[in-house]
Amino acid sequence: MCELLGMQCNTPTDIVFSFTGFACRGGKTGPHADGWGLAFYERRAARIFVETSPCADSPLAAFLRQHSIKTELAIAHIRQKTRGQVKLANTHPFQRELWGRAWVFAHNGKVHGLARKKKLGRFRPIGDTDSEYAFCVLLEALRSGFADYPTSARALREAIAEVGSEISAHGTFNFLLGDGEYLYARCATRLCYIVRQAPFGRATLADEEVSVDFSAVTTPRDRVAVVATTPLTRDEVWTHGVPGSLWVFRHGRVVAALTSPERGAQPPRLRKSA
Amino acid sequence: MCELLGMQCNTPTDIVFSFTGFACRGGKTGPHADGWGLAFYERRAARIFVETSPCADSPLAAFLRQHSIKTELAIAHIRQKTRGQVKLANTHPFQRELWGRAWVFAHNGKVHGLARKKKLGRFRPIGDTDSEYAFCVLLEALRSGFADYPTSARALREAIAEVGSEISAHGTFNFLLGDGEYLYARCATRLCYIVRQAPFGRATLADEEVSVDFSAVTTPRDRVAVVATTPLTRDEVWTHGVPGSLWVFRHGRVVAALTSPERGAQPPRLRKSA
Repeated sequence: MCELLGMQCNTPTDIVFSFTGFACRGGKTGPHADGWGLAFYERRAARIFVETSPCADSPLAAFLRQHSIKTELAIAHIRQKTRGQVKLANTHPFQRELWGRAWVFAHNGKVHGLARKKKLGRFRPIGDTDSEYAFCVLLEALRSGFADYPTSARALREAIAEVGSEISAHGTFNFLLGDGEYLYARCATRLCYIVRQAPFGRATLADEEVSVDFSAVTTPRDRVAVVATTPLTRDEVWTHGVPGSLWVFRHGRVVAALTSPERGAQPPRLRKSA
Repeated sequence: MCELLGMQCNTPTDIVFSFTGFACRGGKTGPHADGWGLAFYERRAARIFVETSPCADSPLAAFLRQHSIKTELAIAHIRQKTRGQVKLANTHPFQRELWGRAWVFAHNGKVHGLARKKKLGRFRPIGDTDSEYAFCVLLEALRSGFADYPTSARALREAIAEVGSEISAHGTFNFLLGDGEYLYARCATRLCYIVRQAPFGRATLADEEVSVDFSAVTTPRDRVAVVATTPLTRDEVWTHGVPGSLWVFRHGRVVAALTSPERGAQPPRLRKSA
């Protein structure tokens, strides 16, 4: 399987603290050593750093921690391969242009036999993961459903939730999807988030002896949402997702939460973890 | 204007030597300080490092020189902006997926009024450069001309040459285009290349006091083609392009050269520079 990390903020913010803990799971505190990727948006454009080597001991990942890049929207992934060999084409996040903006996608889970059920349209996978195939199916559904980037944010997120649910019926479809404006985070089995805002406090990573006093590095107006497969800190309260839910983040907070039942999922339950 | 650098090899090779000289022109020995990008292919996939800051003093560019990445196909660009502000979305190389492979494109020159003459199809620009618009037009022409990646390499390169010539009629269209297998290099005004193969010799950069003895870092079977806007070394013989020509590189050598007249171009001439 894999792990996901997303960040969506109301002001350009660096992801160094979260990425430091997340990177540990890429071969040190976690088994996700088959590649990693980190995408940074600048408005509708994105640049993605990807490698097929373990994130935990990657010089490039270390470089990104040392030379922080501020962004309002970031998506990261560490991979433990299930289907598809370790190679660049199989490394998340994936990116495609639609309606003149970069869409970035990362997946945690497996979807089976999608190729037999869902035809590809305009978007085709470059690698051979089920994840990239699912991304292509998802984008094609949006493309065929709307002539341009929808003026109705609600219509767009409902479409994403619906296609997400359809694809998840073929397996497990936790994902992060960015369009440069919104971060869509779907929970099929495991996903949690936290919103950090004033009054800011201190937080300590779960995977490494690193802590930060956010009040020293923020302004009172900053608001930062962080989404991850499991909590990245051990002294904050994270909100865990209901299977089948889609959170939509903008300006550093959840602006919408949609739920559709997961086939074979446990009964929905909301819980908090400290 | 901008400068282009491409490399296409018969074995994975690092681009450090050429990129070291090229990077100098991004704000030190040349005025191209409005961003830079370097794309590395791994088969049909590509990863692109891009920044909006000058290449010459970029820590990321230094990192890439220190941690060399071997590839058979690389495309780099340093930007001196003409149209479009300095931002990520306007930074070359650009990338799109077509037929399940990454296409990477970088442009040197200006094309005018293309938006009034050439409609966009499936591909849309994310930024606002004439270059990305031209790339979208070029890819759309290929997409509408072939149902899939052509089995005839000749048909594909002839199509690329033809669209290149059409677009160049609107201005100056020097470009590098990669499809994971071939490197297409179009000369509208300035472009040159060198093929390095056994017996390998020594070369010295034109922009920095750096030299390398290629015989010490290669095997007798290696063959590396390097394309650049102007020669990167001062002690090798580079072949200069004829305006309106398209070179096609594969396995480290020119496998085809097509010529179509440039409107308003100087009479074609072949020359060598040492």
